[in-house]
Amino acid sequence: MNTAGLSINLATVRQQWDLVEAVEACARHGIAAVDPWRDQVAAVGIDTAVRAIKDNGMRVSGYCRGGMFPAADTAGRQAAIDDNKRAIDEAAALGAECLVLVVGGLPPGSRDIGAARQMVAEGLATLLPYARASKVPLAIEPLHPMYAGDRACVNTLAQALDLAEQLDDDVGVAIDTYHVWWDPALEAQIARAGRANRILGYHICDWLIPTKDLLLDRGMMGDGVIDFLRIRGWIEKAGYKGLTEVEIFSAADWWTRPGDEVLRTVIERYNDTL
Amino acid sequence: MNTAGLSINLATVRQQWDLVEAVEACARHGIAAVDPWRDQVAAVGIDTAVRAIKDNGMRVSGYCRGGMFPAADTAGRQAAIDDNKRAIDEAAALGAECLVLVVGGLPPGSRDIGAARQMVAEGLATLLPYARASKVPLAIEPLHPMYAGDRACVNTLAQALDLAEQLDDDVGVAIDTYHVWWDPALEAQIARAGRANRILGYHICDWLIPTKDLLLDRGMMGDGVIDFLRIRGWIEKAGYKGLTEVEIFSAADWWTRPGDEVLRTVIERYNDTL
Repeated sequence: MNTAGLSINLATVRQQWDLVEAVEACARHGIAAVDPWRDQVAAVGIDTAVRAIKDNGMRVSGYCRGGMFPAADTAGRQAAIDDNKRAIDEAAALGAECLVLVVGGLPPGSRDIGAARQMVAEGLATLLPYARASKVPLAIEPLHPMYAGDRACVNTLAQALDLAEQLDDDVGVAIDTYHVWWDPALEAQIARAGRANRILGYHICDWLIPTKDLLLDRGMMGDGVIDFLRIRGWIEKAGYKGLTEVEIFSAADWWTRPGDEVLRTVIERYNDTL
Repeated sequence: MNTAGLSINLATVRQQWDLVEAVEACARHGIAAVDPWRDQVAAVGIDTAVRAIKDNGMRVSGYCRGGMFPAADTAGRQAAIDDNKRAIDEAAALGAECLVLVVGGLPPGSRDIGAARQMVAEGLATLLPYARASKVPLAIEPLHPMYAGDRACVNTLAQALDLAEQLDDDVGVAIDTYHVWWDPALEAQIARAGRANRILGYHICDWLIPTKDLLLDRGMMGDGVIDFLRIRGWIEKAGYKGLTEVEIFSAADWWTRPGDEVLRTVIERYNDTL
């Protein structure tokens, strides 16, 4: 089984292992890259996390996550910027290849998604010089429209690319099949992202039918309806040569299984998507 | 309280009343239009349904629903066309102002959403002459992307309008706030729909946070995050002068309350969206 090019987003095994255990397990399975979440890093401490990653020779395909820019008032928006700067510091310490941004939804009490989108654009513009100085590329991740209210008001790849273009040449996107597979414009927008060298991450995860929970019922590749071979073709045609990151939130299924079984299955199914 | 311009999609009270009871209840509350579902019509019989509607002087803002075009084989796709023709006959008998189309998702076992979309286009083209002869306008309803796999592979208003344009001048769209509120292109696409006189229905329903079920946890206007005043402004600016239809699937909340309470609340909240 081929593990070249594979990265494990550590949310996939968050219930089974802490960061150190997860990194060691990945190494044991021949997987050479991970994407940790901030709470996982915080739980063991940044120094321990950095050491585990270096000791195991891991690449860090991304760091999850920054973003969450909209807030009800100026102080809230400033707090978000400050928190994003800490995320950038951590990403730099970990050697992460990008900071993945889940941009945030509506501030509490707001119904103005246009205003939230404006806050995202302003937050990104404010954050960008710090990210650039830290040499941590920012990857805007468009999230499925079902998260528009509470997690991310950037909901299509076209919208993420519009935002990136409006900011600067060095802002990119993370493309997760789970969030974008339904989009009639997907092929064209992947090509557009490739032309501008903006694809900083490619994440895979399947869409289950039925989906029983909006957040925590994501599928292992092959168990749902996403055509991974087709989308991979578009990604490769767009010139992306980076890692493929498997990120599965699955409270009732994969999070309940032994971590080694999850990693074995990820490797098998990853091979089917190549 | 103003009930002018209000229509009740009878799914909103499907657990409380049969079609005849629901129509009579609407009349009692001063509501002069409904949109029944096919199973509700079948449960009382088409003749009884027609009589209840005529006796109560109801307009029928739409009929739910046709569509479901994709199927695994030719026979299945033909069966869908035949079933749509029956839906058109019923819509004509009821005097419905349009047949609402939920176009269908992936055929069983398929991961090819492009092929499903092609089947939808072909099914619509096949059905159109029959609809036209029956004087029943077809209203393509883009459904939220979370239904792309199992209910409707037409997921944005732009996509629905592209499809309508490719078919003919007399194909329209039904715009439901629940499905489209998140779309960054919504304002522009509503304007486009208006320019081409394609808005055949305007449905309202709120997006709850959290949403606990993908299908049956829709919200009463005002209980969620949709900015109805803003979207109504776009709809009116686009020249739409038709009815506003309230359609709420709510297994754990509104479907458990007395029907009269639901209708009273609908009327109050409808007034807040004007």
